[in-house]
Amino acid sequence: MNGAVNFKKCGSLLVTGASRGLGLQMVASLAGGAFSPGKIIATTRNPANAQKLQELAAKHPNIHILPLDVLSQESIEKCAEDVGRLVQDQGLNCLINNAGINVLADFNTVTVEKMMENFHTNAVAPLMITKAFLPLLKKAASTGGAGGSRSMSIQRAAVINMSSQLGSVELNWGEEAKAMSWYPYRTSKCALNMVSRCLALDLEPAGILCMAIHPGWVATDMGGPQAPLSPEESVSAMLSVIGGLTAKDHGSFLGMTGEVLPW
Amino acid sequence: MNGAVNFKKCGSLLVTGASRGLGLQMVASLAGGAFSPGKIIATTRNPANAQKLQELAAKHPNIHILPLDVLSQESIEKCAEDVGRLVQDQGLNCLINNAGINVLADFNTVTVEKMMENFHTNAVAPLMITKAFLPLLKKAASTGGAGGSRSMSIQRAAVINMSSQLGSVELNWGEEAKAMSWYPYRTSKCALNMVSRCLALDLEPAGILCMAIHPGWVATDMGGPQAPLSPEESVSAMLSVIGGLTAKDHGSFLGMTGEVLPW
Ligand SMILES: NC(=O)c1ccc[n+]([C@@H]2O[C@H](COP(=O)([O-])OP(=O)(O)OC[C@H]3O[C@@H](n4cnc5c(N)ncnc54)[C@H](OP(=O)(O)O)[C@@H]3O)[C@@H](O)[C@H]2O)c1
Ligand SMILES: NC(=O)c1ccc[n+]([C@@H]2O[C@H](COP(=O)([O-])OP(=O)(O)OC[C@H]3O[C@@H](n4cnc5c(N)ncnc54)[C@H](OP(=O)(O)O)[C@@H]3O)[C@@H](O)[C@H]2O)c1
Repeated sequence: MNGAVNFKKCGSLLVTGASRGLGLQMVASLAGGAFSPGKIIATTRNPANAQKLQELAAKHPNIHILPLDVLSQESIEKCAEDVGRLVQDQGLNCLINNAGINVLADFNTVTVEKMMENFHTNAVAPLMITKAFLPLLKKAASTGGAGGSRSMSIQRAAVINMSSQLGSVELNWGEEAKAMSWYPYRTSKCALNMVSRCLALDLEPAGILCMAIHPGWVATDMGGPQAPLSPEESVSAMLSVIGGLTAKDHGSFLGMTGEVLPW
Repeated sequence: MNGAVNFKKCGSLLVTGASRGLGLQMVASLAGGAFSPGKIIATTRNPANAQKLQELAAKHPNIHILPLDVLSQESIEKCAEDVGRLVQDQGLNCLINNAGINVLADFNTVTVEKMMENFHTNAVAPLMITKAFLPLLKKAASTGGAGGSRSMSIQRAAVINMSSQLGSVELNWGEEAKAMSWYPYRTSKCALNMVSRCLALDLEPAGILCMAIHPGWVATDMGGPQAPLSPEESVSAMLSVIGGLTAKDHGSFLGMTGEVLPW
């Protein structure tokens, strides 16, 4: 069964980093598909520059663009207030922490600053965003979402962290890995996996599902043109997985087709 | 067989954070035991305040105290120069990245600053230290150490990272973990495991062994008085494991008695 159908019963969903790449594609696929959530909140550092996102929003009235720089606490808090006004008593059903950077550096070129910058954006920001949106996620979880269900799902309340296979310590071995010994990115995504797992434990009592997903290697600005997957392919597969998440996926790390990845 | 015997054939070994806790105990056990390395380089942020270390050094002429603040690039580079003069053509055989902090914070109290501080000390600093000492480790690896061996061991050249079971994403699950949802510490140690694994791949061509070890829960300032293990017990077990490391342990994450831990 295609889990994407469940997005139709998802009242509101927020994506960070929706100006381009996978975030933009998520918004496009969700808005354009047959199973569109009630409200798609597309956040971006700089709405005025997000041309493609603006064009999408002009066509789909359920897209709401809001400014969010994930590195700024002020911006995070302002965004949570804006979203609160938008979703009202329904709360926020699904938060997708997608914004991320790859501060390319290997053993020879890595610096303290590069490590800190990537860690902040990819691991710390999703945590601070989740903290700020927790009241809204709790509101959604307590109403139980569209179905009024007590079990965990994106229709009720969920935090999805866009991780990467490069964050797997286990898979960081062998010849192929050796060619991608990118310290800042790898440590940031492995730390994001740990954040995800801590969040899963902490948010479970509130009924909020939490997990990390790997989108595959995708041809975006980050993935580069040689990547084997198009954003459409990756996002279509991921939405199917995300839409179908249940309590058994709580605290998991899944590939874009739902396969369990090693930590 | 007790691997600690191999320290006798280890020309030089450096421990960071040797002022107290596990670092101090390592120096004490190595200096006082039957299998003492040629040179034990005990580094501490503030040698003048490291009373117990000074007392040990007064008794054991193979202990050399050097200043090292792992957060300062200038201090790291100065220390590498000092060590270079000390070990000369023999290079440095074993680097133990032990210095660490636990910036206690849970979901409610965690801040960006706490996350960054713990990450810098526990994950980034060991990487920057390893970079700075690489020429000395390479020198040791190329002579092959005391035995002139081409296989990997601490007698030849090794980087040992003091990690923690709390850095295991896999083990961060269940009731017990829930009570220790310490975001800054857990992410920092899981990132250190990733650094360890990247280093293992990058330093393998030079013949430098690299791994991460968990000391158990130990009664130090960090571990607290209720911890079940004394520093003596933990360090005795770890030295046995570290002394016996071979190529098969390269890139591994081991417990204090040598058991493999999940990432
Ligand atoms: N592409 C792949 O192959 C791949 C593989 C594994 C994981 N991922 C992960 O998937 C996610 C999306 O990647 P992508 O390929 O779509 O990358 P991308 O094309 O480079 O897009 C990155 C997005 O993140 C946003 N962003 C970066 N820093 C931000 C900040 N401080 N505040 C707000 N937004 C910020 C960017 O916004 P601006 O336009 O304002 O810069 C942009 O929208 C990332 O987390 C990435 O690590 C990608
Ligand atoms: N104790 C446990 O149960 C346990 C369990 C798992 C892992 N570990 C790990 O084992 C290692 C040692 O822990 P411990 O229990 O011995 O902790 P501890 O008693 O608190 O000692 C920490 C040591 O690290 C040093 N240090 C901290 N920041 C430093 C910096 N910026 N520059 C130089 N030195 C610095 C301290 O030096 P100052 O005296 O100058 O502050 C001290 O020597 C840590 O990496 C810790 O995470 C401990």
